[in-house]
Amino acid sequence: MTPGTSEDRLIKLLRQRCPAEGPFLEMGIGDDAAVVRPRGAREFWLITTDMLVERVDFHRDWTRPRQLGSKSISVNLSDLAAMGARPRFFTVSLAIPSDISQRWILEFHEGLAAKGNSLGTRLIGGDLSRSEKHIVISITAMGESLKRKVVYRSGGKPGDLLYVTGTLGRSAAGLKLLQSGKTAARSRIRREALQAHFEPEPRCGSGLWLAQSGLASCMMDLSDGISMDLPRLCSASGTGAEIRLCSLPVFPESSGWGCDPVELALHGGEDYELLFAVPAAKIRRLEKTYPSILPRITQIGCLTEAAGKVWIADSNRRRSRLPRLGFDHFRR
Amino acid sequence: MTPGTSEDRLIKLLRQRCPAEGPFLEMGIGDDAAVVRPRGAREFWLITTDMLVERVDFHRDWTRPRQLGSKSISVNLSDLAAMGARPRFFTVSLAIPSDISQRWILEFHEGLAAKGNSLGTRLIGGDLSRSEKHIVISITAMGESLKRKVVYRSGGKPGDLLYVTGTLGRSAAGLKLLQSGKTAARSRIRREALQAHFEPEPRCGSGLWLAQSGLASCMMDLSDGISMDLPRLCSASGTGAEIRLCSLPVFPESSGWGCDPVELALHGGEDYELLFAVPAAKIRRLEKTYPSILPRITQIGCLTEAAGKVWIADSNRRRSRLPRLGFDHFRR
Repeated sequence: MTPGTSEDRLIKLLRQRCPAEGPFLEMGIGDDAAVVRPRGAREFWLITTDMLVERVDFHRDWTRPRQLGSKSISVNLSDLAAMGARPRFFTVSLAIPSDISQRWILEFHEGLAAKGNSLGTRLIGGDLSRSEKHIVISITAMGESLKRKVVYRSGGKPGDLLYVTGTLGRSAAGLKLLQSGKTAARSRIRREALQAHFEPEPRCGSGLWLAQSGLASCMMDLSDGISMDLPRLCSASGTGAEIRLCSLPVFPESSGWGCDPVELALHGGEDYELLFAVPAAKIRRLEKTYPSILPRITQIGCLTEAAGKVWIADSNRRRSRLPRLGFDHFRR
Repeated sequence: MTPGTSEDRLIKLLRQRCPAEGPFLEMGIGDDAAVVRPRGAREFWLITTDMLVERVDFHRDWTRPRQLGSKSISVNLSDLAAMGARPRFFTVSLAIPSDISQRWILEFHEGLAAKGNSLGTRLIGGDLSRSEKHIVISITAMGESLKRKVVYRSGGKPGDLLYVTGTLGRSAAGLKLLQSGKTAARSRIRREALQAHFEPEPRCGSGLWLAQSGLASCMMDLSDGISMDLPRLCSASGTGAEIRLCSLPVFPESSGWGCDPVELALHGGEDYELLFAVPAAKIRRLEKTYPSILPRITQIGCLTEAAGKVWIADSNRRRSRLPRLGFDHFRR
């Protein structure tokens, strides 16, 4: 399957020009993080990078600098979680227009460092630059594998059962509140949606547990919505997939402000939950041993033979193709 | 000494909030690159990051995408060279406005990969994002030390002799040509200046040789001009410095287009040459054994006792304080 959007196409073109493996390199471009083998090291080291651009990925007026710092590191650590790595270090580069105060910059870094520290990773370097108009944040995070256990996107097989952690569509429900100007968090539910949008929690614990247990055959994080990300998992694994709408762990309360919880779960993006598959023979062990203190997991469907075909089944078992309506920076 | 500019002040504030050392961490913020020790690894791994912002660090109309790609990786590899590390891997994040073509993006990456490959480093990951107006490039590069030999900024002692590689002020002379609209490279000299500006050559070979030989007590690269960077080296080493104007390896031909070669050498920036110090007892060995195939080195002065004081001496041995007129993103 060739994933169909322009962002994926561009990345595919770039990937063809880069090595997938080589000395010290276990996995180059094409997964949530690159995997390297330092000479003599017992573990693998994983490297991921993400850029957040003002007015594309966030709005300065909607978010406090501390929250933005926290979210910036979280989205990177989510990529490490998706491969089962322990976060260790990160660097941050920041381009700042002249109307941003020194206080803003310090508070941003405080949010960044506080969230990073709470998840075991430390800021070890960075760069500060001016920009003419918009804030740009670029983070590179490094993690260490548990022994040499890494879960790739590519290990899925037809018949494996698909799971997600947590709730889908809650961050998008928070974004809808913001877009409609409802920024005051008047109820617990609204606060929860806004919190999910502003301070997503990367699923480091679940990712590590899944890598350690050896139960997940493939895994990735959900950043652009399941309708964008599931085809990527399928493409890497050479499978198709079928998901059951009625099984999705949606955020039903968002219907209270005019959202369709299922639509947001499929196409909303920015949930930073984990999507993973488990061979049928192992799901009893998964469901028996997965720790109850970690975010709950929900079985939502399975991987199928027909490479590249992603289906959704409604409660009457009617099947249709899943349209790719999630987030793409380069869709015109 | 507190370096006096706002960029340095900000970085100092941020640095106070971050660990300098810790598990797996040899050196955090404060040098050209961070130094980490993967569990079991024989060598150290060094990590550095740099951001280039359109209209602040480059102009789209002046440069070809391939050149810009090449320069983007070179400025990062210069930081690794400055600590004596071998380049291994890098990631790139790119924010692109909608008027940039796919061809531009591919050519940029070709320049990046070609230059990276020629210096032994490979692109292993990245991120593509939209921006509203300006291109932003953020690169993180990783290198490996030779054994555990790393040259820090902080090892200089009073009496050590100061050296630089190559020529100073040539890149700034190229920039002056561009700023005055003289973009046609009509002579060899002008081509040389433009080339230095568009495609600076990181001094990886010299940096590695100096680390391997154990002769350099401290080292950094010259990105913001000697008047900005030498005080940083002094600050890290707890020394002062004195440089002789007549010893600077200037680019005299720039006077042909109205520049003062000495001013450009002191304050011009973007030379990406190495600045390093060598104990007096070792300079004979340095000058005898430094390979002639590497860029030439020039002794320009020495480190002194008076911490934080940086002097320049003219040909009549008249001394004056060196004003910090080099590049600072945050000077108002």
